Amino acid sequence: MNDESPTEILNATYRTLCKHGYADLTLQDIAAESEMSKASIHYYYESKNELFVVFLEFLYDRYTTLIDSTDSVCSREHLRSLLRMFLTDEEGRSEKEFRTAMLEMKAQAPYDDEIQTRLVEFDEYLFKRIREIISTGVDAGEFTESVAPERIAEILTTIITGSHTRQVAIDHSVDRLYETITTNVETQLLTSAVAEEAQ
Amino acid sequence: MNDESPTEILNATYRTLCKHGYADLTLQDIAAESEMSKASIHYYYESKNELFVVFLEFLYDRYTTLIDSTDSVCSREHLRSLLRMFLTDEEGRSEKEFRTAMLEMKAQAPYDDEIQTRLVEFDEYLFKRIREIISTGVDAGEFTESVAPERIAEILTTIITGSHTRQVAIDHSVDRLYETITTNVETQLLTSAVAEEAQ
Repeated sequence: MNDESPTEILNATYRTLCKHGYADLTLQDIAAESEMSKASIHYYYESKNELFVVFLEFLYDRYTTLIDSTDSVCSREHLRSLLRMFLTDEEGRSEKEFRTAMLEMKAQAPYDDEIQTRLVEFDEYLFKRIREIISTGVDAGEFTESVAPERIAEILTTIITGSHTRQVAIDHSVDRLYETITTNVETQLLTSAVAEEAQ
Repeated sequence: MNDESPTEILNATYRTLCKHGYADLTLQDIAAESEMSKASIHYYYESKNELFVVFLEFLYDRYTTLIDSTDSVCSREHLRSLLRMFLTDEEGRSEKEFRTAMLEMKAQAPYDDEIQTRLVEFDEYLFKRIREIISTGVDAGEFTESVAPERIAEILTTIITGSHTRQVAIDHSVDRLYETITTNVETQLLTSAVAEEAQ
């Protein structure tokens, strides 16, 4: 790994990825997008693959920071803000372009162990964070004890992944999912509170 | 479209796709897998892209037939058999290889309108079929009237898509989802019946 490799290369990789997608992208394209020559990029990374493994680590840091930036003393609001981040399109077009590149990397992962290992980390971080939010809500008596945090986290991680795949592959709006999912999940999570109130 | 193009080419395309994936696949690879020469394949299809548009129509027929093959007078069992088909791995390895190729096509779709149009049809068929099963269950009094069939269908379509993406990208088992999803969905669908019994 190249700890001292300039962030400039990684930022240029991000911009190039949104513009060109992953499949046809070359180190030359990244050089054209950055202020560095192809030779300088080669000094740090021997191949596109090597660069992308480091790039995914860089993205992972941004990803976990972003997830951790959603917070609230209220678990219901905390979960909502997380779902809002993943299931609405506040960033607009650039978000979709980035997800397109991510889907290309996901499709590449079965042929590339290093990329797959990195992608597993993204998935696990999201899963664990959701599980934690739900457990916290259960412990605080905000969510019903009858739900298994593991199960809800598994379902929500799958839904977030699926909504991004559908957004890229069939241009399906993610926005309409946010309301559907929050309503649906909250109905399950808040069941006992609602039931208690009704008693 | 080449209505008279031999099914042999399409079957060979399927086998080649499972073996090589989509990205690096050539008409030459398909010829090697079939009993036809590359020239004969070229007689029917000018390019890999043209072949794949027809191939996706061929797959769509198989897909809809497969979905329609799940049936039961009981809506709960009907929904289960559909989810079992998509969320368990009875076919084993070949199913995963095929889904890997499908994910490559999904990642390609934003760059190819014809492929995207075909993929939309797959998604819509699944969505409508699930919505129909749930509506039938509601009409029959088997499922609670308080669920919106549209919403549950939207969620399940997204979950199925997401589980296949995770299976391919991070080698996440789909099997463990089947039980989680059916339990979760049935809890929602059967709520009123359960509630009535409890009264």
